[in-house]
Amino acid sequence: MTDTRLLFAPVASGLAGVERCILASADGQHPMLGEALRYVFDTRGKRLRPALVLLSGALGDYDEDRLILLASSLEVVHTASLVHDDTIDEAMTRRGITTLNSVWDRHTAIVTGDFLFAKSAELASKMNSVRIMRMLSETVMAMCSGEMRQHAATNNWEISVEEYLERIGAKTASLFAMCCAGAGVTTGQSEAHIEALYTYGFNVGLAFQIVDDILDFVADEVAIGKPAGNDLRHGTITLPAILFMQKLPHGAPLRQRLQHGEDSELAADLIRESGALAEAREFARRASSEAIQALAAFSGGEAKASLVEIAQYLPARSV
Amino acid sequence: MTDTRLLFAPVASGLAGVERCILASADGQHPMLGEALRYVFDTRGKRLRPALVLLSGALGDYDEDRLILLASSLEVVHTASLVHDDTIDEAMTRRGITTLNSVWDRHTAIVTGDFLFAKSAELASKMNSVRIMRMLSETVMAMCSGEMRQHAATNNWEISVEEYLERIGAKTASLFAMCCAGAGVTTGQSEAHIEALYTYGFNVGLAFQIVDDILDFVADEVAIGKPAGNDLRHGTITLPAILFMQKLPHGAPLRQRLQHGEDSELAADLIRESGALAEAREFARRASSEAIQALAAFSGGEAKASLVEIAQYLPARSV
Repeated sequence: MTDTRLLFAPVASGLAGVERCILASADGQHPMLGEALRYVFDTRGKRLRPALVLLSGALGDYDEDRLILLASSLEVVHTASLVHDDTIDEAMTRRGITTLNSVWDRHTAIVTGDFLFAKSAELASKMNSVRIMRMLSETVMAMCSGEMRQHAATNNWEISVEEYLERIGAKTASLFAMCCAGAGVTTGQSEAHIEALYTYGFNVGLAFQIVDDILDFVADEVAIGKPAGNDLRHGTITLPAILFMQKLPHGAPLRQRLQHGEDSELAADLIRESGALAEAREFARRASSEAIQALAAFSGGEAKASLVEIAQYLPARSV
Repeated sequence: MTDTRLLFAPVASGLAGVERCILASADGQHPMLGEALRYVFDTRGKRLRPALVLLSGALGDYDEDRLILLASSLEVVHTASLVHDDTIDEAMTRRGITTLNSVWDRHTAIVTGDFLFAKSAELASKMNSVRIMRMLSETVMAMCSGEMRQHAATNNWEISVEEYLERIGAKTASLFAMCCAGAGVTTGQSEAHIEALYTYGFNVGLAFQIVDDILDFVADEVAIGKPAGNDLRHGTITLPAILFMQKLPHGAPLRQRLQHGEDSELAADLIRESGALAEAREFARRASSEAIQALAAFSGGEAKASLVEIAQYLPARSV
């Protein structure tokens, strides 16, 4: 397993700044809101999105203060979406830590999520760039649209790979693309380079989400902090399930039963045994290759090397 | 009863533009999201906030296209907060129409609200003003903070009038203030005039919310579209209840029982009979006077006359 801290080494000082900036968002708020904010910020993620902002910024005219604002803003958007996702799913834990909606209540979780969306806009507004603000609002709209697509496709075992990729593109990859392209805008890069960063980020986001969906089938609760098979139990049909269905004969009785929301435990076992997980990893690897190809536009250096390594690491990751 | 359409007459063409702009937000979205958006936009409110934007803008260098964007953005913020409020309260109806969370489900309602918050930022970003974007994000943060204060004070019969005013100032009046001050910024008014518009909007917002809280005690479900006594049943202690408690002797047994969440139906009857509703209207009248005073800075005209009439109308309104 690659330690992501090594990949993030070129931007360690920026990441420390992001940490301070995010935590400061909880200061000066109503005590109950401040406590809720500190609680969700403590559920620390890998900080992959802030690292992508800073590394992409290092390919241009690196301005740490403004990149820290952008990175913090986008990590706060990510946090807001997790808080609302957990509220929707009534999830009890996230990364092994009790969720806000279960330790407090739904009311607190909805309002804290709303506050975080607004806070992300406020942080971004300090960058004094209307273009960044517009990109940010379009990204959040895309994320919501992806979430709605997922909801509309609940228990739909007949969705296509294309529909799946469109959904995760909107729900997950759009934010990764925003991290990289937003950093390009912030550091005065050319439109061609901004577009290349968008393509890199979007494909890294696809690879990330595909592997996330694979890990849902294999990882145990201790390692990823949520129970395995969570997606199927919620009726969320992801790439391994779609690839498995493509192998199943049209008239197969199991196909009928799955449509009716039955046998999802059995299906999870069959999917694991079918080779669909390995096939899904191939999709992640292809996205990763496209990400790396997009970086061809940039000359070498420490930051570019880290971006390449991140793209190489994601399809293989096991946690 | 004053027909608000008369008060809004000077900006009727702008209001029609706002209607078109809001409805267009549902276009081009995923079918399920588009349907949810059209559903909530159909639950048409009084459009008081857009009217305040347009009328305040008419005091400056009136630019209808940009004011329509601002007014639409702020009405969309208002709609987003209603969708999430109803989801939190598990309300079945709003203005007599079934809520999104009850006709669809909580998942759809949370995501649609999130989308609306992002859409409001996207609409505002088209105005190309970082200052407006910052004001918008600060307003939404204030609204969330007010909602959290309300949640933290659930069933707290000992809150003070000051705490109540601070809460509704954040939850409701901050958006009214943004409507008026934002229009001032958009139409190139002086800082003194922008501040006067802020004071006007904030006080109009206070008067509006105080009367809303009074009407909760007296109005019937048919007239305001939600059952009377709704607030007390949710443990939301508003101005009439606070003023009533101030009359109740310290050792009164009822005081003890209310603290324990008992006898709220009896309390509602006693509050109606105590004169607390009339006293609360006095607070609304005082806020209205302060709003009108703030307009002294502006010379006369049709728009100013409408703003004065709106402030005069609100404390007396019965629906």
